[in-house]
Amino acid sequence: MSDNDSLTEWQPKLVKIASAALQGDGAHDINHLHRVWASAQALMAKEAGADPLVVLAACYLHDLVNLPKNHPERSTASTQSAKAARTTLAALDFPPQKLDAVAHAIEAHSFSAAIAPRSLEARIVQDADRLDALGAVGLARLFYIAGQMGSALADGADPLATNRPLDDRAFALDHIVAKLSKLPAMMQTPAGRHLADQRLSRLTTFRTDFAHEWTGLAL
Amino acid sequence: MSDNDSLTEWQPKLVKIASAALQGDGAHDINHLHRVWASAQALMAKEAGADPLVVLAACYLHDLVNLPKNHPERSTASTQSAKAARTTLAALDFPPQKLDAVAHAIEAHSFSAAIAPRSLEARIVQDADRLDALGAVGLARLFYIAGQMGSALADGADPLATNRPLDDRAFALDHIVAKLSKLPAMMQTPAGRHLADQRLSRLTTFRTDFAHEWTGLAL
Repeated sequence: MSDNDSLTEWQPKLVKIASAALQGDGAHDINHLHRVWASAQALMAKEAGADPLVVLAACYLHDLVNLPKNHPERSTASTQSAKAARTTLAALDFPPQKLDAVAHAIEAHSFSAAIAPRSLEARIVQDADRLDALGAVGLARLFYIAGQMGSALADGADPLATNRPLDDRAFALDHIVAKLSKLPAMMQTPAGRHLADQRLSRLTTFRTDFAHEWTGLAL
Repeated sequence: MSDNDSLTEWQPKLVKIASAALQGDGAHDINHLHRVWASAQALMAKEAGADPLVVLAACYLHDLVNLPKNHPERSTASTQSAKAARTTLAALDFPPQKLDAVAHAIEAHSFSAAIAPRSLEARIVQDADRLDALGAVGLARLFYIAGQMGSALADGADPLATNRPLDDRAFALDHIVAKLSKLPAMMQTPAGRHLADQRLSRLTTFRTDFAHEWTGLAL
């Protein structure tokens, strides 16, 4: 069976497994998983040598256990996802020699788990997932999650945090500088870093426009 | 007492009344009210003849009764706000000859109430409130509210609604075309329309970028 055949065979099965675990969260729905896989394919086209079936499985199953940002066990979610993915894939006769690689790519994708990716597949999945936090889609997800969590859009008196510490739990806009602006330097592949730089620049422009409107300077 | 004196006297009182009615919603918090008042001042600088105290009071009290977008009595919220504002202002010895004008500007601000604004003050308050739905701040509020309501960011297969009817209850991105793109033509003052055009163009650019990322075209 060729690589393409096995991808075509496994994608619908993986969508089915992932869909059953989704919790109706628009920032982490099946479209997030489709986008991560689309980005991973784009990265594989530039970074030769990854096993596409391992990347496919890790992309669709990386959020199998997804805990909210403010959950105390948030940092263990990726390890729990890796374990659940391994069990489910083994039961479906996924190639057993690839299970370790899938599990590692899943456990290493997470920001909060702080597990260094040791394989090209893990580096690609981590980059693809982080790309979805940037750009126009990342912007939409940022404020969507803020609405779910009930934080403020920005600090009323000092939206750009000129004279206070950043606090992205309290102020959604702070998340762009507190976390998203650091992603390009943390990307694991050159192609991922290039895309991350492009998408971060959209967020930086947005932040400036937002502060001008917020403070009445854009009037 | 000059106009400026009465504005300085009333603004903190109005902030206090409005703050007591806020429900911890980041898209309709005190910063929304400050921004609406900032926009209204910018519009008054271009459209001479409005009574600034009437505009000030209507800006801060326009959301005194705020019902969620999916509430069955949503269309009566602005009339309820006008009534509550009149009662509260009368008790605080607000100039009685201005109460009708404040109440009208509040009841006429709302999209869903469909009450035509009959005064310059009402036109300015309506425009100022609608400007806050556009631009970078409007974008943040759009996805924030989607997160609160639990709708999807966009339609997975057809984010731009090329081959389906728009549905902005189901898909946040649809709101840009379904409602926000119509605001510039509905603005009540030339200055409001100019600002609305500028801010809508940011949303249109965002929508194109979003769809490119969503479908993998931006990779």
